[in-house]
Amino acid sequence: MKLNVSINGYGTIGKRVVEAVVKHPFLNLIGIGKYTPDHEALLAIEKGFPVFAPKNSIPKFLERGIKIEGSIEEMIKFSDVIIDCSPAGKGIENKRIYALNNKKAIFQGGEPKEIAELSFNSRCNFDAAREKKYIRVVSCNTTALCRIIKPLMENYKIKNVEAVLLRRAADPCDDKTGPINAVKWSSSPSHHAEDVKTVIENIQISTSAFVIPHTLTHLTYLTFNFNNDSPTKEEMYEIFKKERRVAVIENAQSTAQLIEASRDLELKRYDTYMVYLLMNTFHKNENKISFTIVTPQESIVIPENIDALIAQSNLMNKDEAQKLTEKILGIDLIKNSMEKIFSNPLTIESSIHA
Amino acid sequence: MKLNVSINGYGTIGKRVVEAVVKHPFLNLIGIGKYTPDHEALLAIEKGFPVFAPKNSIPKFLERGIKIEGSIEEMIKFSDVIIDCSPAGKGIENKRIYALNNKKAIFQGGEPKEIAELSFNSRCNFDAAREKKYIRVVSCNTTALCRIIKPLMENYKIKNVEAVLLRRAADPCDDKTGPINAVKWSSSPSHHAEDVKTVIENIQISTSAFVIPHTLTHLTYLTFNFNNDSPTKEEMYEIFKKERRVAVIENAQSTAQLIEASRDLELKRYDTYMVYLLMNTFHKNENKISFTIVTPQESIVIPENIDALIAQSNLMNKDEAQKLTEKILGIDLIKNSMEKIFSNPLTIESSIHA
Repeated sequence: MKLNVSINGYGTIGKRVVEAVVKHPFLNLIGIGKYTPDHEALLAIEKGFPVFAPKNSIPKFLERGIKIEGSIEEMIKFSDVIIDCSPAGKGIENKRIYALNNKKAIFQGGEPKEIAELSFNSRCNFDAAREKKYIRVVSCNTTALCRIIKPLMENYKIKNVEAVLLRRAADPCDDKTGPINAVKWSSSPSHHAEDVKTVIENIQISTSAFVIPHTLTHLTYLTFNFNNDSPTKEEMYEIFKKERRVAVIENAQSTAQLIEASRDLELKRYDTYMVYLLMNTFHKNENKISFTIVTPQESIVIPENIDALIAQSNLMNKDEAQKLTEKILGIDLIKNSMEKIFSNPLTIESSIHA
Repeated sequence: MKLNVSINGYGTIGKRVVEAVVKHPFLNLIGIGKYTPDHEALLAIEKGFPVFAPKNSIPKFLERGIKIEGSIEEMIKFSDVIIDCSPAGKGIENKRIYALNNKKAIFQGGEPKEIAELSFNSRCNFDAAREKKYIRVVSCNTTALCRIIKPLMENYKIKNVEAVLLRRAADPCDDKTGPINAVKWSSSPSHHAEDVKTVIENIQISTSAFVIPHTLTHLTYLTFNFNNDSPTKEEMYEIFKKERRVAVIENAQSTAQLIEASRDLELKRYDTYMVYLLMNTFHKNENKISFTIVTPQESIVIPENIDALIAQSNLMNKDEAQKLTEKILGIDLIKNSMEKIFSNPLTIESSIHA
């Protein structure tokens, strides 16, 4: 018995979630909810996905030659779970329809935390998602921060964390927003600290954010203060060796190098699903360490959405579920390749001994 | 008796220094040293400035219709002081010629500190420049950091300073470098901390740097840790009220807003010569404060170059010299206008009571 899943909204996150769902042996794609009769709808059909539209909009889709399977209301009725990938803020509106039909749903990090019973990060609280009707997968930056903070927290006593975020101005698909030659700043502190606390409650964290003219990845400069002991560079490698969704790299100097490697490795849409930990930016001073991470904003939450589905419907245990998600997305190979290319000493050593 | 000054190199800094020199009542421009026979040379002549070229290159200049007053070697002989504004690293080479002719010289921050007897920042060590034969005016970022650190140091006991620099990728005049859609990082820590220590010796400071695709201004996220007491927002306003080369502003959200205001105020090349302290980014947590500053990289060192000239040749006392430099460049008016436009409460109050 497969879980019947529909994806409501077909933007940056939605299109990637759909492709992961159809590859997953336990999931059955019912359809995609699409609101605008544009080329993205035709592209979804071209790829063979069933497209649904709001009842009132169906004539507009048909006029433009876009084949529609039915209304979004019908799609919801056929589904066990809806992954809501609509634009930030729209999820609240959609939730009423899911509730009316007594359906489970997964929302994205652009929604307020109150939308769901749980703010989810697979590394931090997979098991808490079991049997929850509504789950919110936290945003790309929060996901990256959780993947980095949690392992350090399990090994050392963190006094506090400070993060300076350099946010990309727009996604590659976005032709509406900027800036292209300006930097914006948030009145400090930014909302990201509070969002991390929806997943990791007992953490002291403050965040500041800049928007920079760049479309590929967010960057975050992190400072960790520890109560007493703090990790050396070698200990950082050891701790994050076990983290399958963190690529720990040494010899990269720019986001351009990371993106070019992803293209050369023929990764679909150069998605890597993982956060990069830049070890050549690491420095340690007594009980304080600093380093920078890079977050591929389009793809990092995709494995989290799949894990949330599996946990919510109690289909597998945590480790099996995560490993299957990673297999489908090719995450292990990506981590291994990136770490070799950019000189993680442990990955290079293990490949020599293999 | 005026001081005879020549400017060797006519790039981003050189062209601005020349225009400040010709406005100064105590300075006499001998000429500009130009190495490439390009449109910038013709522009200098169009503005009425005497242009000199290397002896061997003069025929190439004449061929292109560029009127040359003589060789750079002659220009140096006619001068009391040379302000070396050549590209970073070239100053060392030029210094031999200045020394051979027994001339005083001022170098820019791109040169190593060993080039000069003093690394100069007008706010920090004006009087130390008296009678020094060779002076190095520190770089734009170091100048900005010095203008912010020194006043805080005079009022509070600083434990340490941490700075995250977001550096502009290229100057507006630069059509050679990038990146345009990538972020570069420096292996931490960056060189800026060491450069600040050439001016302020007894400071604990560490710096990290990113290069971002942007041409207008550097930004720096600063964290100050104090030994005991630390300033409130109100105290920050009080301390920096007296700093004539720091604009303390509240209601700006992006560099685009600062630049557009500079253009609307009809500032030449939208130069403001000052560092912006963004008070809407200020936050305080016990003995720690954080905030962001914005550094107009092309113009901030211009007043410092003029002050260095005056101090070196012992022409005026510190306060008179700085005020005359500021009058020539219009700095007081610029600070006042920017603070009013972007809502500094003290500046608004004083204009109501005036």
